[in-house]
Amino acid sequence: MNIAALYHRSDSEFAYLYSPDKFHIRLRTAKDDIREVSLVNGDPYRLWGEWHIDLFNEKLPMKIIASTDANDYWMVEMSAKHKRLHYSFLIVGNDGKEMFFCEKGVYPVRKPYISNHNYYFRFPYLHEIDMIKTPDWVRNTVWYQIFPERYRNGDVSNDPVGTLVWNSKEPKLNDFFGGDLQGIIDKLGHIKSLGFNGIYLCPIFKSPSNHKYDTTDYFEIDPAFGTKETLKKLVNECHKHGIKVMLDAVFNHIGDSSEQWRDIVKNGTASKYASWFHIKEFPVSYAETDIVGVADLTYDSFAFTHHMPKLNTANPEVQEYLLSVARFWIEECEIDAWRLDVANEVDHHFWKRFRKEITDLKNEIFILGEIWQSPQSWLRGDEIHAVMNYSLTEAILEYFIRGNISASEMITTMNRQFMLYAQQTNEVMLNLLDSHDTPRLMTVANGNGELVKSVLAFMFLQTGSPCIYYGTEIGMFGGEEPGCRGCMEWDENKWDKDMYSFIASLVAFRRKYSDIISFSNTKWETDDERNIIKLEKEHNGSILVGIFNNGTADLKIAFETPLLSSETRIEKNNTVIGAGGFYIGINNF
Amino acid sequence: MNIAALYHRSDSEFAYLYSPDKFHIRLRTAKDDIREVSLVNGDPYRLWGEWHIDLFNEKLPMKIIASTDANDYWMVEMSAKHKRLHYSFLIVGNDGKEMFFCEKGVYPVRKPYISNHNYYFRFPYLHEIDMIKTPDWVRNTVWYQIFPERYRNGDVSNDPVGTLVWNSKEPKLNDFFGGDLQGIIDKLGHIKSLGFNGIYLCPIFKSPSNHKYDTTDYFEIDPAFGTKETLKKLVNECHKHGIKVMLDAVFNHIGDSSEQWRDIVKNGTASKYASWFHIKEFPVSYAETDIVGVADLTYDSFAFTHHMPKLNTANPEVQEYLLSVARFWIEECEIDAWRLDVANEVDHHFWKRFRKEITDLKNEIFILGEIWQSPQSWLRGDEIHAVMNYSLTEAILEYFIRGNISASEMITTMNRQFMLYAQQTNEVMLNLLDSHDTPRLMTVANGNGELVKSVLAFMFLQTGSPCIYYGTEIGMFGGEEPGCRGCMEWDENKWDKDMYSFIASLVAFRRKYSDIISFSNTKWETDDERNIIKLEKEHNGSILVGIFNNGTADLKIAFETPLLSSETRIEKNNTVIGAGGFYIGINNF
Repeated sequence: MNIAALYHRSDSEFAYLYSPDKFHIRLRTAKDDIREVSLVNGDPYRLWGEWHIDLFNEKLPMKIIASTDANDYWMVEMSAKHKRLHYSFLIVGNDGKEMFFCEKGVYPVRKPYISNHNYYFRFPYLHEIDMIKTPDWVRNTVWYQIFPERYRNGDVSNDPVGTLVWNSKEPKLNDFFGGDLQGIIDKLGHIKSLGFNGIYLCPIFKSPSNHKYDTTDYFEIDPAFGTKETLKKLVNECHKHGIKVMLDAVFNHIGDSSEQWRDIVKNGTASKYASWFHIKEFPVSYAETDIVGVADLTYDSFAFTHHMPKLNTANPEVQEYLLSVARFWIEECEIDAWRLDVANEVDHHFWKRFRKEITDLKNEIFILGEIWQSPQSWLRGDEIHAVMNYSLTEAILEYFIRGNISASEMITTMNRQFMLYAQQTNEVMLNLLDSHDTPRLMTVANGNGELVKSVLAFMFLQTGSPCIYYGTEIGMFGGEEPGCRGCMEWDENKWDKDMYSFIASLVAFRRKYSDIISFSNTKWETDDERNIIKLEKEHNGSILVGIFNNGTADLKIAFETPLLSSETRIEKNNTVIGAGGFYIGINNF
Repeated sequence: MNIAALYHRSDSEFAYLYSPDKFHIRLRTAKDDIREVSLVNGDPYRLWGEWHIDLFNEKLPMKIIASTDANDYWMVEMSAKHKRLHYSFLIVGNDGKEMFFCEKGVYPVRKPYISNHNYYFRFPYLHEIDMIKTPDWVRNTVWYQIFPERYRNGDVSNDPVGTLVWNSKEPKLNDFFGGDLQGIIDKLGHIKSLGFNGIYLCPIFKSPSNHKYDTTDYFEIDPAFGTKETLKKLVNECHKHGIKVMLDAVFNHIGDSSEQWRDIVKNGTASKYASWFHIKEFPVSYAETDIVGVADLTYDSFAFTHHMPKLNTANPEVQEYLLSVARFWIEECEIDAWRLDVANEVDHHFWKRFRKEITDLKNEIFILGEIWQSPQSWLRGDEIHAVMNYSLTEAILEYFIRGNISASEMITTMNRQFMLYAQQTNEVMLNLLDSHDTPRLMTVANGNGELVKSVLAFMFLQTGSPCIYYGTEIGMFGGEEPGCRGCMEWDENKWDKDMYSFIASLVAFRRKYSDIISFSNTKWETDDERNIIKLEKEHNGSILVGIFNNGTADLKIAFETPLLSSETRIEKNNTVIGAGGFYIGINNF
């Protein structure tokens, strides 16, 4: 038995409340090493008689819910009468050995160990107040991400000086094309017709740039985008159509055009904002640098860009200021969600305050963090609800597009990530394949529309809340920033109409089968030789089946009538998935 | 290479700030499986040129700091210019294989993986506000635990009705002997002469029992113990002599004699305290039960005892009430620490508020939790500072006293526990061998004083802040509760005077070598056959050496002049540790 591989962690994603009366216990073992795992469990204060023998008699079988190339993850869902539990694992190896894995280590199944209650793991009391809560509505939401400056110019009167003709050229870093909030309002019909029920807007507050990640004033809508009234109208219209609205909060740093930073530059140590930043040396130096570049700034900034001085969120004044911003837009415009830019570079202490104040104000608010790596420690239930799931993006692209990893390796990566979080967190992860920060999917797929469909369908089958970047629905291309921030094409003659109807079907499919996708574990089968993936998701008597043929040969399957497919045909009573195609179907039983 | 055994967790005890400019990165591998581990690391935004090659050129070697029977734990201490880092591990197995262990899994050391910055673990920004802070003074504190009803009767005028003659019999569950705070004041000389610089008092607030874990009124000192003035005097006297004072807060539950619970019994759902408890059914039923017994109460209680209804700490009113208690005794009597009874059965949400409010009031306060199992999730830096280290107790007793495990198994258990926490947390753990909740050490050691000395010396060598239960210094016996709560013997003729001077030397030793014990890792050698343990702790050019001979034969060693020893003699220029003896010495170099 590979004892070195065993891992369990009390009061974590390995042992958590899923709902007020149900909790999940997980265990990691080496892959294909263990024949059987049971949870030996009972009330920690029921210590009379032969209590340890009772515990073993009442043990619960655990099941494998996810595997990686190296590990299996076992789980059991259960409840406890007195809301408390002590537990250990009875593990039977493929070598036939039986071991007792407990808080004190791994021991033979012998009385001195199993009858000592101090050896057991403990779930001391199941407090609902400590349960990780995620908003129900997010599970059923399909998001549409918009980069406002490039979506639609709905009001030419607010165009900034030097606004270019819409779509007249490839976007450069500092171009303006006149997109605004009125444009989005005008095009809600388009969004609605595709079935989206959530809109995620990149920053819209006053800022000199087109991307607005260098905020000048968090309390003003950028004049080129509209006014508070325009935002109110947008949110109202969205709510009328059952669409949620998420705004982008850039709290890690502020823009160098802000009143606060200008005051630092002007007044140095005498500035009332002197402790609002992380300043190493006054006067602050102002060498021109950018995100990527050698830098020796006298203050901490986002990456190495002098335009974005980092805010000192440990300063209570800064906290109050940013929290007042967060509250303001909820109270003023009734937004439904905050997306938090570079959330992992802001301290936990601040996000804990943020979570509390914001959920006190609007209980069903959704708080999404931008964290590309290792978001685990922000997802304990008292900071953010979920992240932009770039780990999933990366795994999918590495396999489907770049070919750096095999199907099994992709599933390994996905499952490892999946097992880092409680189930209710996984259910509200924002799954995406591209964004304003990455090349567009169509571009990375080299214009292969069928591949784009396949990748999107695959992503839509994963637990979480999927998000489509504007323009994907019409087959837009775009490379690395700023290429991915091109003007939305509104000339329908230039649309990829096949893609449009595919996206509409995909969104409809996802919204219809939201429960089965959210609430089921995934059973995977892969054939790395032929480059085929099959996944099954079972829930309440239905099995959703997805088969992706990424090989070069046709694949005959026994299933019929797809719910959604690409490159799939019926041939002599067989369903055949062509190379690069996929099939999604459902079996009810 | 045993890839299944690898474990790292971002932003946890595997990657944390130790001081504002130093952080620790740890990695778990299978034991004796890996030849070399290096930390590949750099600034996450320094992504120009051949940055990944630079990262590999600048990699840092990691060292094994602890091992268990199954795993090795590697560590490196480092700093980062821009207060941020991305990192991965380059692992060379004993099989000669080189692997790249990163956030996305384990890969060959090849460009597609090592040049993708999304593959790296991230330490996004080193926020001092999120650093786990523990009070410096605790590292240098040696605690003396007192069960006040049994320490000294200093004021006969406050004796409860039916008070028995001091030490006239073995204590029964409901006996009173008249111990009080004045008695402790009277005996501060005793405590001081032994060298203790911290006193930890079991509960002293108004309650009908002798143990006072069933509080009637948190704002009153029990009349049989004294008054607020007596406590003030005690704290003042202690502070004059450099002794810190810790009180016991029983916030998980209240006593059934409290105004709040009586109101529930009297007024049922109409009680203003109706939501202060976890009541399943009104009227509350009052079947006689106790800690161990079959119970079907209509409300949640501590264990199964109807005397201790559990408080609903999710209720803001209850929170305010308990916080006002915690603040009151700090403000009124200037206590230095709170010990929190059954801390793990109270919700995290409450302890986070508690931590904040209490440290805002008194920055250097020490917050100690009673958590017997798995305290990890309470020790993230925003709840308690440390726990009563019963896991250490258990490991030591299982080996030294009960013989259920070997020396190697004990070290395995100790090291596993040690690796669950940040270094600064380990440094302030309250290490103990017995308490008011366990049989006394002398009793479990079957009256073997040399064994008691050896076990105590061993415990005093461990990182953490040691605690001695009153009476240990004079060789007191006492079995399971209530046996362990016997009256302190004040007739010096009945003292074990050898033990008294040993304890005084032990405390003096610990206080003198506090730095080396706190700040070093432990190097272990064991000989399970001969039952010998050797440990070395190195710090600033000194090596502290401890050798424990638990076998049946003499052990000759090369060291001379012990700092502390038992059953050790010089024989023909050799130092000989007799069976059951120990030797502690120091080498300066």
